Amino acid sequence: MFDKLFDTKSFEIAEAHCDAPCGVYDPAQARVEAESVLQLTKKILDLKRPEGDDAKAHAAYQNTLTRFITIKETRADLAKHHLMVLWSDYFKPAHLEKYPDLHELFWNAAKLCSSCKQEVSLEHAEELMAAIKRVHEIFWESKGKDVPWYTAS
Amino acid sequence: MFDKLFDTKSFEIAEAHCDAPCGVYDPAQARVEAESVLQLTKKILDLKRPEGDDAKAHAAYQNTLTRFITIKETRADLAKHHLMVLWSDYFKPAHLEKYPDLHELFWNAAKLCSSCKQEVSLEHAEELMAAIKRVHEIFWESKGKDVPWYTAS
Amino acid sequence: MFDKLFDTKSFEIAEAHCDAPCGVYDPAQARVEAESVLQLTKKILDLKRPEGDDAKAHAAYQNTLTRFITIKETRADLAKHHLMVLWSDYFKPAHLEKYPDLHELFWNAAKLCSSCKQEVSLEHAEELMAAIKRVHEIFWESKGKDVPWYTAS
Amino acid sequence: MFDKLFDTKSFEIAEAHCDAPCGVYDPAQARVEAESVLQLTKKILDLKRPEGDDAKAHAAYQNTLTRFITIKETRADLAKHHLMVLWSDYFKPAHLEKYPDLHELFWNAAKLCSSCKQEVSLEHAEELMAAIKRVHEIFWESKGKDVPWYTAS
Amino acid sequence: MFDKLFDTKSFEIAEAHCDAPCGVYDPAQARVEAESVLQLTKKILDLKRPEGDDAKAHAAYQNTLTRFITIKETRADLAKHHLMVLWSDYFKPAHLEKYPDLHELFWNAAKLCSSCKQEVSLEHAEELMAAIKRVHEIFWESKGKDVPWYTAS
Amino acid sequence: MFDKLFDTKSFEIAEAHCDAPCGVYDPAQARVEAESVLQLTKKILDLKRPEGDDAKAHAAYQNTLTRFITIKETRADLAKHHLMVLWSDYFKPAHLEKYPDLHELFWNAAKLCSSCKQEVSLEHAEELMAAIKRVHEIFWESKGKDVPWYTAS
Repeated sequence: MFDKLFDTKSFEIAEAHCDAPCGVYDPAQARVEAESVLQLTKKILDLKRPEGDDAKAHAAYQNTLTRFITIKETRADLAKHHLMVLWSDYFKPAHLEKYPDLHELFWNAAKLCSSCKQEVSLEHAEELMAAIKRVHEIFWESKGKDVPWYTAS
Repeated sequence: MFDKLFDTKSFEIAEAHCDAPCGVYDPAQARVEAESVLQLTKKILDLKRPEGDDAKAHAAYQNTLTRFITIKETRADLAKHHLMVLWSDYFKPAHLEKYPDLHELFWNAAKLCSSCKQEVSLEHAEELMAAIKRVHEIFWESKGKDVPWYTAS
Repeated sequence: MFDKLFDTKSFEIAEAHCDAPCGVYDPAQARVEAESVLQLTKKILDLKRPEGDDAKAHAAYQNTLTRFITIKETRADLAKHHLMVLWSDYFKPAHLEKYPDLHELFWNAAKLCSSCKQEVSLEHAEELMAAIKRVHEIFWESKGKDVPWYTAS
Repeated sequence: MFDKLFDTKSFEIAEAHCDAPCGVYDPAQARVEAESVLQLTKKILDLKRPEGDDAKAHAAYQNTLTRFITIKETRADLAKHHLMVLWSDYFKPAHLEKYPDLHELFWNAAKLCSSCKQEVSLEHAEELMAAIKRVHEIFWESKGKDVPWYTAS
Repeated sequence: MFDKLFDTKSFEIAEAHCDAPCGVYDPAQARVEAESVLQLTKKILDLKRPEGDDAKAHAAYQNTLTRFITIKETRADLAKHHLMVLWSDYFKPAHLEKYPDLHELFWNAAKLCSSCKQEVSLEHAEELMAAIKRVHEIFWESKGKDVPWYTAS
Repeated sequence: MFDKLFDTKSFEIAEAHCDAPCGVYDPAQARVEAESVLQLTKKILDLKRPEGDDAKAHAAYQNTLTRFITIKETRADLAKHHLMVLWSDYFKPAHLEKYPDLHELFWNAAKLCSSCKQEVSLEHAEELMAAIKRVHEIFWESKGKDVPWYTAS
């Protein structure tokens, strides 16, 4: 059914084809969002519920907690979005031959984004960072470019 | 790295786990968007450029054409989004054992969404519908529910 | 003021005119979102606050509760959006003659979406499902097509 | 089915109830968007296609035309959104008794938003402005507040 | 670097240039959102946590509190967005000569939007309203039009 | 009016305060979007209108051109958004003392984003890249971190 789409004969052709929309991809987009997820997870775990009955302090606490949780949700969703764009738009059948675990890598990374939404888990947030670091390595290797990994936080 | 996430022992456990966020998935969401993509592709191909120099007729033509192209873009993107949600959120490792071509099915469907954006291709729009019909069959089979395929157009 | 827009002489003309943008409408879109609202309402009511002072358990509880509430909000808003599209774009004056309570049906359904946001009410979530089932019946009857009602959950 | 929701006994109760979410509504939001629709419609009609074969001039022309059309689409959609919020959230059954043509007014205004997307029609853009002016009058009258109508363009 | 962009010789030229996209700006858009922020801040501070262990009452309370906080976030973000559009799109170098504190005014207003997200502060919500009132005055003065300030709440 | 907000006494305090929401900022986000703008500008200028009357070729050409223009619009808007976040959220009064042209730098960069929407101008797209490179330098200098500038295209 998909013959015509995918009969690219070589890696070079696949690369050239990848330039069709705008040709600008960078795993840094997913990495920035995943860093936010990690930082917000830490902040949620560190947040102290105020003791006593001060209504203002309680409102401030709930405001901060709710914001951290909903911003974590948004950031994890953006990380997933940027990962899905790389998987479905940038990577071509020729890449899959070279990186046979490509589908598993992205499936697991996407599922980690969901875990980071559903849980307050430092472990899963760090696994997501590790998965994106692996995407960064494969991506730049496939472009034949040496871009060092760094984090903004 | 992902051991803890995915050591589901059986299909039933995977199913139960899938209810964690809200448990409501329906490939009809992707199907409705893909139908729009197909209809808009037809309309773009059928649209006649006005002859002569009537400025109003020309403005109306450009308005219609631009809208069909940009709405096609939006609809193809939504189809892709709904497909990605099914792939990354609903389907679990136990499903992959039963449907070993799961990753390929969704990867190709996602790439067809991109083709339907980049081209004005009836053939690819129909292939996208066929891919979503296959997703519909697998999905409802995995839920043990008999839901007939229909189209709204 | 609106004479020119609405002087459709017959049901058939209205139907044909409805194809102007893309002609693909399906109340299934609103139904899927309302199902989510119903499931999330149930989950919020079922969620147990953890006893004791375990900070991690408390963070997990707040994370889950906040997500259920904000996703319910988003889903109810999408249900409303899909209903408004049907009301304002699909239904034409000729339909209103045949279904004189059309405006009331959609106004009440829209107000139920708001209630489902503002409250944690199983009753209103079920009333919203019932209203959408009624929309489904009118819609497919007006298209002369027999599409059975089903739910995904 | 909707008894409980709508058994408001008086206008005052309806008004008070309207404060439940945040109580801030202003038809100015819809008016600003409709003004944009009107201005963009004018600009599309005034835009001159460049004569001759200069590629840069042609690209600039297409860029401007495409932007005007897509921004008009977005603005008409926002106008519709703000109108739907007023209709479904602000106005209550007690208002309907006082303004029996409320549903028709908003249905027609919503359909005018669609016309302004689908056409390049000064006439419909001006009818939309007139419909929003009528909404402005009813709205502020119902609030017992005297707010003069003005336009920003 | 930016010479060509900004060598507008007079106020009139700047004004004319400002009409290039659609020419419709109105600080009322930012004002409506800031009013929501102020009202929601009040509502959060006024909300009473239910006494006792009634699970339904507790769910309703959390639902209301979470919605007020997240809607406040959205509204403050929209206020900021509308302010940034005025600052970056409407105001031109010729305005800066006339209003030398333009940058400070908008920078502080933007930072107040962030404060109103991060805090539950009546004081900062009122300062945001005051900053937008000042924007309203400068804006209409620069257009040579007399538009009275009013609030919708 | 804004005294309390901004009486930060030193650079270090400003830095610490900056961590309040999530502390993760990276000019790479704006850079990726601006690269897209530059690439799409090139592609629009390079696109050849098909000769002759082949309707399919014409539809394909219009589809590609319209997509390039609207995606350029979206990307320029995202570049602007990421720049505005850095200006209004990350940078504090203590930074302004060290970089007195901060406001001008961001105002001009924001105006370049608008130019890149309104025009098909390689020159302005390159000026936008240069402005973001300057933001990159100031930003990482202010964080005391050495992050090399690179592009993804």
